[in-house]
Amino acid sequence: MSLFSRSYEGRKRGPPLDSEPSDHQDVISCTGEMDVEALRLTLKQYDQEHLLKFWSCLTSKQRTMLYKELSDMDLEEVCNIYRECNQNSGEENEKLDELLQPIPSELHGGVSSSSPEKIADLRNIGLEKISEHKVAVLLLAGGQGTRLGVPYPKGMYDVGLPSHKTLYQLQGERILRLQLLAEEKTGKPCIIPWYIMTSEHTMDPTIEFFEKHNYFGLKKENFIIFEQDMLPCFTFDGKIILETPWKIATAPDGNGGLYRALRKQGIVEDMEKRGVMYIHVYCVDNILVKLADPVFIGYCVEKGANCGAKVVEKLFPTEAVGVVCKVDGKYQVVEYSEISLKTAQKRNPDGRLTFNAGSICNHFFTLDFLHTVIKSNNLKHHIAKKKIPYVNEEGEVVKPDKPNGIKLEKFVFDVFEFSSQFVVWEVLREDEFSPLKNADGAEKDTPTTARHALFSLHQRYVLSAGGKFVDEDGTTIPLIPSLSTTQKSSLSSTCKETGHGDDTDSQKYYQKYQGPVVCEISPLLSYDGEDLHELVSGKKFTPPLVLESTQEQKCQNGTKTPNLPFTV
Amino acid sequence: MSLFSRSYEGRKRGPPLDSEPSDHQDVISCTGEMDVEALRLTLKQYDQEHLLKFWSCLTSKQRTMLYKELSDMDLEEVCNIYRECNQNSGEENEKLDELLQPIPSELHGGVSSSSPEKIADLRNIGLEKISEHKVAVLLLAGGQGTRLGVPYPKGMYDVGLPSHKTLYQLQGERILRLQLLAEEKTGKPCIIPWYIMTSEHTMDPTIEFFEKHNYFGLKKENFIIFEQDMLPCFTFDGKIILETPWKIATAPDGNGGLYRALRKQGIVEDMEKRGVMYIHVYCVDNILVKLADPVFIGYCVEKGANCGAKVVEKLFPTEAVGVVCKVDGKYQVVEYSEISLKTAQKRNPDGRLTFNAGSICNHFFTLDFLHTVIKSNNLKHHIAKKKIPYVNEEGEVVKPDKPNGIKLEKFVFDVFEFSSQFVVWEVLREDEFSPLKNADGAEKDTPTTARHALFSLHQRYVLSAGGKFVDEDGTTIPLIPSLSTTQKSSLSSTCKETGHGDDTDSQKYYQKYQGPVVCEISPLLSYDGEDLHELVSGKKFTPPLVLESTQEQKCQNGTKTPNLPFTV
Repeated sequence: MSLFSRSYEGRKRGPPLDSEPSDHQDVISCTGEMDVEALRLTLKQYDQEHLLKFWSCLTSKQRTMLYKELSDMDLEEVCNIYRECNQNSGEENEKLDELLQPIPSELHGGVSSSSPEKIADLRNIGLEKISEHKVAVLLLAGGQGTRLGVPYPKGMYDVGLPSHKTLYQLQGERILRLQLLAEEKTGKPCIIPWYIMTSEHTMDPTIEFFEKHNYFGLKKENFIIFEQDMLPCFTFDGKIILETPWKIATAPDGNGGLYRALRKQGIVEDMEKRGVMYIHVYCVDNILVKLADPVFIGYCVEKGANCGAKVVEKLFPTEAVGVVCKVDGKYQVVEYSEISLKTAQKRNPDGRLTFNAGSICNHFFTLDFLHTVIKSNNLKHHIAKKKIPYVNEEGEVVKPDKPNGIKLEKFVFDVFEFSSQFVVWEVLREDEFSPLKNADGAEKDTPTTARHALFSLHQRYVLSAGGKFVDEDGTTIPLIPSLSTTQKSSLSSTCKETGHGDDTDSQKYYQKYQGPVVCEISPLLSYDGEDLHELVSGKKFTPPLVLESTQEQKCQNGTKTPNLPFTV
Repeated sequence: MSLFSRSYEGRKRGPPLDSEPSDHQDVISCTGEMDVEALRLTLKQYDQEHLLKFWSCLTSKQRTMLYKELSDMDLEEVCNIYRECNQNSGEENEKLDELLQPIPSELHGGVSSSSPEKIADLRNIGLEKISEHKVAVLLLAGGQGTRLGVPYPKGMYDVGLPSHKTLYQLQGERILRLQLLAEEKTGKPCIIPWYIMTSEHTMDPTIEFFEKHNYFGLKKENFIIFEQDMLPCFTFDGKIILETPWKIATAPDGNGGLYRALRKQGIVEDMEKRGVMYIHVYCVDNILVKLADPVFIGYCVEKGANCGAKVVEKLFPTEAVGVVCKVDGKYQVVEYSEISLKTAQKRNPDGRLTFNAGSICNHFFTLDFLHTVIKSNNLKHHIAKKKIPYVNEEGEVVKPDKPNGIKLEKFVFDVFEFSSQFVVWEVLREDEFSPLKNADGAEKDTPTTARHALFSLHQRYVLSAGGKFVDEDGTTIPLIPSLSTTQKSSLSSTCKETGHGDDTDSQKYYQKYQGPVVCEISPLLSYDGEDLHELVSGKKFTPPLVLESTQEQKCQNGTKTPNLPFTV
């Protein structure tokens, strides 16, 4: 059995492993005698006996902890992973450029190059599969809010919408709405199971959060949370790092650890039992994410794909985005830092970048494909050099200034190479991608940019459904929303440079309201703009405009958690 | 004679008009008797006699000032402009969407859709015209650094390059270098005259700055500075606004005031005298601007255009950028706020936006075309509603909270409609456009983004010429520069979301050096990447890399102003 693998149900709720155990805590129970000498011999076999060097100084509780951690670890597997990685890392990617090919155009569809009728067809195919209970969503939510500056999982973050809905709630309500849309097709109840992969850091708070909010109206039984593995960190010469005298340094095994977790925790069997055939995998931090997007699923199904990636167009050669492409005949995401400038600058005769399929961590898999991937279990790990806190000879914890060790990671997209029926579906960035990465004040990907991206999208929903926005004087607010004063000004003001800055109406609006047009439409009312015509057509709205379902309005004064069933 | 029109040579250096004159100052001389009653009658004729309502309370100096200002003003012209504007402003643009057409593809060339051979051909055509002394550059530099937070013209701003060159110096050195490149073709000296349109606010400091820096090595006689007009501001019911009891509120007449200034100040005659045939007009604030870009000029000349616009691709429907297009058969820049969302979202079958020619204020004109435009003199003014400080009945200056009046502006691109041979040349945004608009801390268009854009471009010059960048340990720094940590992470990190953020090498580099790879190449060495092969090919550089000409190195300890001639 491998260390660090924990499932939802079977999990023991002990204290975090990195705090020193006290006598008052219900620490890990030690069921048997500790055979330290046997452990020492095993460690020696793998050249890791330094892990016990502080043994004689440890308290009894500390000994128990360390003993359990080390004897639970599959040393052979862990050391093999390190060895393989280390052997591969010497290979130079000099030839990568020559091997690189774009995704063939017949496998690279997209919203902007498809007719509205085609989009409607694909959407119907997707909704049909959803209504047949064949579609599940799988959320990668191992990320902590470190860069965001919060001590809890990103999904629990409130970006400051008028409704104060968190990312988790927006996602849950999109699932609810999509279930309803699918039900309209068949008249029968519809379920989209929601699988959530957490990490050691996000498991407990995520569970508690969903429980507290009554799963946002979803049924608990269709809500499956599990945890990804942790792997030890190594020094550059292959020694596992001690973080404290009684605990080894560990890190999640990357979002590609998904496959290992799916296998070990019986997730794939659960999917099979439910009759799931298609899985949409996505990341927690994209506020615009379209869970189980029926158009994307429809495209993949129509193309007979067993694996697919939703992408946005890479816009310029030095944009820092991984691109989906073919390398030596195999599909792969190649990081921007792995290819030469010359290759990145390659363009098609129409002027577009040759390698332009920017990955946004929105993937499609068939269950059959996941089965194959999980059985073969031969995903390579990547080495990430990191600054890893370690304990020195005196037993003191040291925080290094520069990378002193490696973490071993897999990436969720590393399985693309096993697909022979792979497709790419390109969507519009402003409609579908606005990740939350940093605290406000950073250049981009902040709560403000996420909030504004949602406002902009929802304002466009209203405009497209025939609604208008007017200011307090009744003047129409310019139809095209401006994300911000500065964004507005970048190009157009340059054209008008005079002795004084030129304020357009939109810019004035922005200044007046200290932000763009505020417009939030509850996912319970509309998944991606549908069914708004009756509500808004021909009407004039003065921002802020918040459209809620009747169910939400009822709940407003009490808990925000609505009761089932939703009457939208 | 129109008020506010001042030429370089003839200008009287008095105190700023908006400060109250003191007896110690050499104020505007009053050559004749003041006939106030005649003035009052004239004002009455145009319904503007309120301008004299404080006359009885003014000091003698104040009276002199106001009298001069009012009697110099061409009231008929000014009031006509107001009346025309006001009549037009009622017209709704409802039908604009139907009239809108994109630039025909045969008149819309671009860097990314042209072969390297084609680009080289165009460049040769342009260099030839330059070497024949037929090309001039014209800078629109009326903008104050208000939003940037400095009290001097933007061109004097130092964005913090290692060399601490200002925007003016970068531009001057690019002209010098381009002159040299053109000389190489003929063996004869080459001149690119530099015309600079300033405003009331930027004229004096600009002149002083260039004088102080010895024109950055350019010859003074090829350096022509002039000033755009000012126009009075009006209330919504057509009264000219008094800013103080003795001064009317004025504003520059927009960058389209260029044409009036060209006519009134004999600039076109000066061009004619020098044999100039092609003029490149640009704005001061784009740090990457390619002055007299031979490729752009080559394209316009080859196409037989009399007017042309350099553009960047508009990337998404709600991007706040004016687009060059055809309206009712006439070429025009249409602001993003003037068209409907539906029209902005229109796409060609290949998925690109139909209206995608984003204007960046980089224009080409033949002298013949300028002649025509200036003669006809029928550019319409636009109304810009503004908050304009005014004096109330009690003679106190009031700063209004909301727009209380209008400024009348023309735009430089408004002449496009008079061209029947119009072309558009599309360039890459990351190579050619990074405007300086805001102080650091703003979302974009800051000194930092401008500096980083230049570093990125110059790093790519070095990479393309065969150089490499390594860090202090000799490790190659990833070939594709990352503009910033957050930009880097936006897409690619999402793909790898795990329990911990994933730092790529480039990101680590960014963190280590608190910024991107610093690389600055003097314009005196290379105009747009040419002639670097010998200097950098096969070499490894540890940032910061600053490549200077020998001439600069000599000057480093003394004044930064180099002596002529440059030995590059």
